[in-house]
Amino acid sequence: MLVVQKYGGTSVADVDRIRNVADRIGRTRAAGHDVVVVVSAMAGETNRLLALAKAAARTPDDRESDALVATGEQVTAALTALALQDTGVAARSFLGHQVRIETDSAHGKARITRIDIERLRDALGGGAVAVVAGFQGVDGQGSITTLGRGGSDTSAVALAAALGADVCEIYTDVDGVYSADPRIVADARKLREVSFEEMLELAASGARVLALRAVEYARNHGVKLHVRSSFKLDEGTSVMKEEEMLEQAIISGIAHDTSEARVTIHKVPDRPGVAARTFRPLADAGINIGEIFQNTSTAGLADISFTLPENELDRAEPIIDAFSREIGAEAFDCDREIAKVTVVGAGMKSNPGVAAAIFEALADAGINIEMISTSSIRVSGVIRATDAKRAVQVVHRRFGLGGEVLEGEG
Amino acid sequence: MLVVQKYGGTSVADVDRIRNVADRIGRTRAAGHDVVVVVSAMAGETNRLLALAKAAARTPDDRESDALVATGEQVTAALTALALQDTGVAARSFLGHQVRIETDSAHGKARITRIDIERLRDALGGGAVAVVAGFQGVDGQGSITTLGRGGSDTSAVALAAALGADVCEIYTDVDGVYSADPRIVADARKLREVSFEEMLELAASGARVLALRAVEYARNHGVKLHVRSSFKLDEGTSVMKEEEMLEQAIISGIAHDTSEARVTIHKVPDRPGVAARTFRPLADAGINIGEIFQNTSTAGLADISFTLPENELDRAEPIIDAFSREIGAEAFDCDREIAKVTVVGAGMKSNPGVAAAIFEALADAGINIEMISTSSIRVSGVIRATDAKRAVQVVHRRFGLGGEVLEGEG
Repeated sequence: MLVVQKYGGTSVADVDRIRNVADRIGRTRAAGHDVVVVVSAMAGETNRLLALAKAAARTPDDRESDALVATGEQVTAALTALALQDTGVAARSFLGHQVRIETDSAHGKARITRIDIERLRDALGGGAVAVVAGFQGVDGQGSITTLGRGGSDTSAVALAAALGADVCEIYTDVDGVYSADPRIVADARKLREVSFEEMLELAASGARVLALRAVEYARNHGVKLHVRSSFKLDEGTSVMKEEEMLEQAIISGIAHDTSEARVTIHKVPDRPGVAARTFRPLADAGINIGEIFQNTSTAGLADISFTLPENELDRAEPIIDAFSREIGAEAFDCDREIAKVTVVGAGMKSNPGVAAAIFEALADAGINIEMISTSSIRVSGVIRATDAKRAVQVVHRRFGLGGEVLEGEG
Repeated sequence: MLVVQKYGGTSVADVDRIRNVADRIGRTRAAGHDVVVVVSAMAGETNRLLALAKAAARTPDDRESDALVATGEQVTAALTALALQDTGVAARSFLGHQVRIETDSAHGKARITRIDIERLRDALGGGAVAVVAGFQGVDGQGSITTLGRGGSDTSAVALAAALGADVCEIYTDVDGVYSADPRIVADARKLREVSFEEMLELAASGARVLALRAVEYARNHGVKLHVRSSFKLDEGTSVMKEEEMLEQAIISGIAHDTSEARVTIHKVPDRPGVAARTFRPLADAGINIGEIFQNTSTAGLADISFTLPENELDRAEPIIDAFSREIGAEAFDCDREIAKVTVVGAGMKSNPGVAAAIFEALADAGINIEMISTSSIRVSGVIRATDAKRAVQVVHRRFGLGGEVLEGEG
């Protein structure tokens, strides 16, 4: 088997943990598999380097920032190769430009355009583990690029796709994807399997276990993911095509997100082009809009609501104020105290009444739903932030999601 | 003018100093010159990274160690480019593989085989300062290599040669080459000019201001060096061809070195091949011999002495013991308490009696000379380590080397 293993920042936080990771990789080698390892920077290192950049320049240039922060993964890759060699496992480190992983020139958020696998194949053919620095690539001019936060997940998935790996294992500090945040729901259950679509909805709704972009890449290229802990040998959660799953739960998991704020623009004249004029200035300012809610208009006037990261609100307000006046809206208001609770399940498609059951559970608990949005496998409700934990708990209980999963052998 | 400037570790020890360096580079740009900058790792960083390698593996692999420590210069190069941009000076960083600086595959002590200048020319042509990570290159397989300690000096000189630069400025924490170590000789004089040959002898004899290899490279390629302080605007010391020097002092400088030990092998049978059998095993063990002293033999038996780094002595002793027996020597002894004092001056060639004057000065001070070696521009004596400072002082005084040099405008 060819296995790609990705180890995140907390898994390689110091040399002791890197040696632990090396042992782990050695077990996979000893089981007879070829291994390509993708590593992140040691926890805290990327932020340390970004702070240096900020100290050197008030508005650090993207190209130079990329060259700077890419050293974080370079250090981990070399140390991991050294730790492997020290345990008697042949290993060789590779940087983005050595692999080579080509990207566009969008520094800080580059997209992979092409991956050479020849050098990795050579290393594997020679019996070595190939340790690749995650998060980084090289553009057409030979400049170092980085893929943005969570980029090492994307590096791992892209390499797995290019190599035709049997599985891409994502090692992290949690041991899988849970039916809800275990810190909130005591009997939250670790999912044995989840579909790409469910994982995408969960990742987009506040579950931080996997980077959204990496899940998209995996789905588009049919790369089977396995999310698991670098500190335990237990099986984690497999992310796979829906048709390959053994069983389909009606509801797989509940995610919640309290990091967003809500903006509502009141009494917007309901004319063609108004939505475009509303969201273009925010897009131009690089502000990522979460979800947009608009109901049918009354007397030619509509209310438009949307969510955005709370920490962008200060920057967004003057922009919103300007275009609200421009489009002739009556007023706008902002609310930082919201939470979004999202229920995801591929089985919803064939089970009518799931949304109703969710709403009933919340109503029974006296929790008001302020806004609703849905997709074929997702129901999201915006509620008061103070109700978030209780909302997750009551829905979790209503669908009987709790209980222990049977563990496979690690 | 095209100027290559190299800034060492203490000059870029933290972001404040890097900003100071950026100001300095900006002045050169403002004077209308094209500038290529070569930077070292921030002081202490290379040792920090090597310690990580030692923690990850008992005997760290050279290739991975190089990939690891090369991040030190990468960080400085990016930060320097950022600091330049912040002061309004266009700048672009380049790594060894981006320039590209090709080397052989001798990791940890690679030699430069070829330098492309196209990308640097493009950067300069576009009005930017090119900031190159020193100490590093790339081999034919695309692996990162490093040039060994002092390698950034070599990077700078090699780039200056490849670019046909008008001068290669070496910025350091001392403001030039002195007639003797100013910590020992209070009125030591900063040299305005020194020849490549003198600088080579001084560098080989304990003066740490420039890496020996960089001086050799500069001499071989006719690159004019200027050693100066990154903290002062004063002119430093120019290192140039002897025939281009304005004046030739009989004696330029006095160096001393207490880091070596002496080994003497007594009563070695004086036969062809004995010297080879003596020094081959040490060379094979990677132990660098300093100087070798052998006088004519008496009754077919010779004493052979040599110096070597004191910190290699423990490793060398069993090897010396083995070959001493093999070649039939009577015995050997080691002495850690020696110093070597070296007097260098291109004018010695045309001034008989310099060696005699040196010996007289030492004798007048009651300092015994245990071994002597000379070249056409150098006289070295091995003495007691406890006499070293006094020896430098009395010879300095004897030749009237003291006094202030007139400073040019910085």
